[in-house]
Amino acid sequence: MAAITSPSNPKIKLIRKLRERKERETSGLFYAEGLRILAEAVQQKASFEYLVVAPELLTSPFGQELLGNLRLAGTPVYEVSPDTFKSFAVKEGPQGIAAVLHQRWLSLESVHPQPGDSWVVLDEVADPGNLGTILRTHDAVGGKGVLLLDHTTDPYDPTSVRASMGSVFSQHLVKASFSAFTGWKKASQVPLVGASGAASQDYHLFRFPDPYLLLMGSEREGLKEHHRQLCDNIISIPMVGRSDSLNLAIATAVILYECYNQRRDRK
Amino acid sequence: MAAITSPSNPKIKLIRKLRERKERETSGLFYAEGLRILAEAVQQKASFEYLVVAPELLTSPFGQELLGNLRLAGTPVYEVSPDTFKSFAVKEGPQGIAAVLHQRWLSLESVHPQPGDSWVVLDEVADPGNLGTILRTHDAVGGKGVLLLDHTTDPYDPTSVRASMGSVFSQHLVKASFSAFTGWKKASQVPLVGASGAASQDYHLFRFPDPYLLLMGSEREGLKEHHRQLCDNIISIPMVGRSDSLNLAIATAVILYECYNQRRDRK
Repeated sequence: MAAITSPSNPKIKLIRKLRERKERETSGLFYAEGLRILAEAVQQKASFEYLVVAPELLTSPFGQELLGNLRLAGTPVYEVSPDTFKSFAVKEGPQGIAAVLHQRWLSLESVHPQPGDSWVVLDEVADPGNLGTILRTHDAVGGKGVLLLDHTTDPYDPTSVRASMGSVFSQHLVKASFSAFTGWKKASQVPLVGASGAASQDYHLFRFPDPYLLLMGSEREGLKEHHRQLCDNIISIPMVGRSDSLNLAIATAVILYECYNQRRDRK
Repeated sequence: MAAITSPSNPKIKLIRKLRERKERETSGLFYAEGLRILAEAVQQKASFEYLVVAPELLTSPFGQELLGNLRLAGTPVYEVSPDTFKSFAVKEGPQGIAAVLHQRWLSLESVHPQPGDSWVVLDEVADPGNLGTILRTHDAVGGKGVLLLDHTTDPYDPTSVRASMGSVFSQHLVKASFSAFTGWKKASQVPLVGASGAASQDYHLFRFPDPYLLLMGSEREGLKEHHRQLCDNIISIPMVGRSDSLNLAIATAVILYECYNQRRDRK
């Protein structure tokens, strides 16, 4: 195990650089931290570039075991002081274990939805916290993955990785342009269900097709006209209070659980 | 309209100080910004201490009208430069209108849940973004208010105010110690439904009482033993993926919409 004593060491500098989307896209790498998230990375056979640990912070038997397993697998491990660790950690009160990992993307062509599957399609979602929360919720209902159109925020943003609580490793991730998605959707014939506050079809009275794709628009604009055109159905969530919209991750969750409940009610 | 030219002016300094919970508790004031949120404040007859505007940023007719109405109502208005405004604004790309307002709290004794009502009870919730999102969702299902036990984060935190999208003005807010809440709950006899990943009662098969109180534990610990003891029922949301928990605001929303759907299904 190599010890790093300078915060300007290239391994540490790379972690800071990976906060930038451009650096993540160029390198194909990303940063993740914390016991629970990295344990899930191991479970999901994620590819580790290297591990950084602060032994004084990493004290739990679970943490020791995780470190031991990663070392056995040949992952390079660098040791830093608690202060150096805190200088790059996203979370306050860090657990002393962090990693640089390789991103994993599926090609659109390899996606063939089967009965029971759902995919969330996101367009121009701006908040990585929302994206990570959607990954986490979609995992909870047994969804397959998330398809990111055009300018959607990056699932490998540190805020998304953290909000996903490890689901960034278990959910399939696909990036596509809207035109490539249009072609694929028409060929695959999987029903596309859009969500929009303006739709008249109540999501709770709607019978979800199986499999299906759920298209959510951006926080700011919702579904755009060219999205609506491609949708087989557009559903809305009723609201009876003062607000005219829900948080994007909340709206996605409410719809995903409705579909989940319908499928189990029918069994 | 008075013009403020120095960022160290006391009106601007107070805005920065109001980021601190202690300052908010001592003064009974809080900070809110943005057209939509302040329009809702006016609608809900919130009490304004003063308004700060950056005329060069506040250009929409809607913004002009809002400002005009507040001025007519006698609200003191201070003008600042766009740079000064951006120095205290929470959101990037601010809309040039912000206010210091008086907090509004209801006493626990004055809460008398009626048929159709729901209240969310929160204990030790740490993330003000989660709290604001819960306010927004509870408003959407027509819920009455949120009851904050002991060490729960502050709904008047700027992050909560923003995430609430104005629901901080329409939802009733109550603070209480757990022991005061216990006494009130026993006297009022309103059923308390707790949510816990460990519960065997499936939330979708559970028939929600009317009215009811929904108790959610903290992000970190969930329901504690003394909470469980006080609950009439404890429900859980099934998860079939890798995760063993949902984000707190997501779990709350999934339950609130289930109850909302049950009530309208029965009509």
